[in-house]
Amino acid sequence: MTTSLEVSFIDRLTTGFLRADAQLNAPHESDAELIRLPGGAILALTTDGIVEEIEAGLYDDPWLAGWMSVVVSASDLAAVGAEPLGIMVCETLPRGAPAAFIEALQHGIADAVAAHALPVLGGDTNHSDRLALTTTALGIISEGKPLTRRGAMPGDLLFATGPLGLGSAYALARLRGEHDSAYQPRARLREGILLRHWANACMDTSDGVIATLHELGCRDALGFALDDVSRVLHPAALRVSREAGLPPWVMLAGPHGEFELLCAVSPERSADFVDQAAREGWTPLRLGTVTGSGHVALPDGNGAAQIDAGVVRNLFQECGGDADRFLGALLELR
Amino acid sequence: MTTSLEVSFIDRLTTGFLRADAQLNAPHESDAELIRLPGGAILALTTDGIVEEIEAGLYDDPWLAGWMSVVVSASDLAAVGAEPLGIMVCETLPRGAPAAFIEALQHGIADAVAAHALPVLGGDTNHSDRLALTTTALGIISEGKPLTRRGAMPGDLLFATGPLGLGSAYALARLRGEHDSAYQPRARLREGILLRHWANACMDTSDGVIATLHELGCRDALGFALDDVSRVLHPAALRVSREAGLPPWVMLAGPHGEFELLCAVSPERSADFVDQAAREGWTPLRLGTVTGSGHVALPDGNGAAQIDAGVVRNLFQECGGDADRFLGALLELR
Repeated sequence: MTTSLEVSFIDRLTTGFLRADAQLNAPHESDAELIRLPGGAILALTTDGIVEEIEAGLYDDPWLAGWMSVVVSASDLAAVGAEPLGIMVCETLPRGAPAAFIEALQHGIADAVAAHALPVLGGDTNHSDRLALTTTALGIISEGKPLTRRGAMPGDLLFATGPLGLGSAYALARLRGEHDSAYQPRARLREGILLRHWANACMDTSDGVIATLHELGCRDALGFALDDVSRVLHPAALRVSREAGLPPWVMLAGPHGEFELLCAVSPERSADFVDQAAREGWTPLRLGTVTGSGHVALPDGNGAAQIDAGVVRNLFQECGGDADRFLGALLELR
Repeated sequence: MTTSLEVSFIDRLTTGFLRADAQLNAPHESDAELIRLPGGAILALTTDGIVEEIEAGLYDDPWLAGWMSVVVSASDLAAVGAEPLGIMVCETLPRGAPAAFIEALQHGIADAVAAHALPVLGGDTNHSDRLALTTTALGIISEGKPLTRRGAMPGDLLFATGPLGLGSAYALARLRGEHDSAYQPRARLREGILLRHWANACMDTSDGVIATLHELGCRDALGFALDDVSRVLHPAALRVSREAGLPPWVMLAGPHGEFELLCAVSPERSADFVDQAAREGWTPLRLGTVTGSGHVALPDGNGAAQIDAGVVRNLFQECGGDADRFLGALLELR
């Protein structure tokens, strides 16, 4: 598979940084950093800035910006199966913003921390000419091992915690001037805690499904054979793809994610896993199978085709962040 | 004392946020958030954005911006006496910045984490039209109680971990076009760990000395009688104040701090505290005495005078962030 431009860039940036002996994960190996505490428990820690999505206009509703600032970090805790302890919120507020804007933003944060039972531990406030939000979420794994991105095996079944494609559908709808698309993802904290006991590897789809598959597979040259994509798409995503005349798999390819968890489960444990999830009130969605092929095989109306997930992952950046160029380039890959 | 505008603003922003039962400190009560972990140890956590200082041009040297992004968070760990575990670094990089700019920035971060033995645990990277940095530092207090801003008593002696005034002096020199001012503060982590066993209250001077005194005193209506200010100023700060024709106390009044720790120690324990610090290789600087007066008494060449630390703390914001207006208004207070 092709290497991720973003991962290479981050590796170059951080080459000279002192690392911690107590850290259990290598860079890129898990959605949250995993630190062994003196008492033996594992602390899960993750930090995320929301800057580019705001500048691109995706979160110009301040309530949604506040909500998303909590979800992006909480979702990384979910992906390692940590019990949430709380969140730190660093807000850069636009100077001279109307009181209603600030109020809606704070309501978005307050609603999200309440919905995720993720208390606000503290934060910082700055002023600038535009909004930017950075959150840091903290969780704990008191016993057992954390869930990381590594460990999937050929033959494992690939599941998602819920229907896919809403992140791309929302971004596409917004770029086409629609404002009624329902996009309000929730971090799958409860699901992640269960997955820690069942999954071999896990990652959230914050950067879209195909980028997530790339990261889950690239270090061990794994691939994925997906089932019928239209079956796992959220109905709203399916509708957007049809209205735009795009094949369903394109809804998995955009860099704006739906914040579900993707996980690989050993085939012999899959039935028990699905049963246990059902007892907890949710239904894992079967997405396909892990393979040793190094690429993603997509069956759809035109028959199976292979795509290089690394090429898809890099494409938005290589198109200079231009959504129309990105879509055009994406369709040429098939 | 006058209420801090910043504190009131933050209280309004955060009214509706869910809080954590395991949190030991109330808002504003300590430099870092203090969370009781299941095993009994206390986690110290702090997040800081560097936005306004960069926009004001104070850190247009990218190396210094990187260095400071580590210091601001590490210093909050120091003020609660935590053993550092590590730091998370969220960077918003300017699009199209020259490679040398990015390299110097990363070197500043790498040099600071090495100097403070504060490993980088993880981070996030975004791109925008200008630089912004948010760091989150993590420390642990395995036994004993943490150090907070609360607990100073009238009669306590007031100490600083080092000479004061460099933050204001650097800002003033930069605004006057000088670029050779040596400003490279270090977080007083080692000193904070000692202070936890000796001090009744502690806070770092990240927002300047007088703002720190205000926060240490305002909730219990405490005041401070300072000794001769020129004796505790850093020689470079004294030089800048003389060259600008400003009284020495003005070097304590600006909102750009020197990242020393201020602490209150019971008079009967002060001699032993100073001895212990000397054995560890540093000299606490005696700054004055805690009083029950509710104001800051400053003796200088013109005899003692009282200032309202809350008025000084709010003044830069009330002057719209204009340094010349701020200096003029400051001098009218005496």
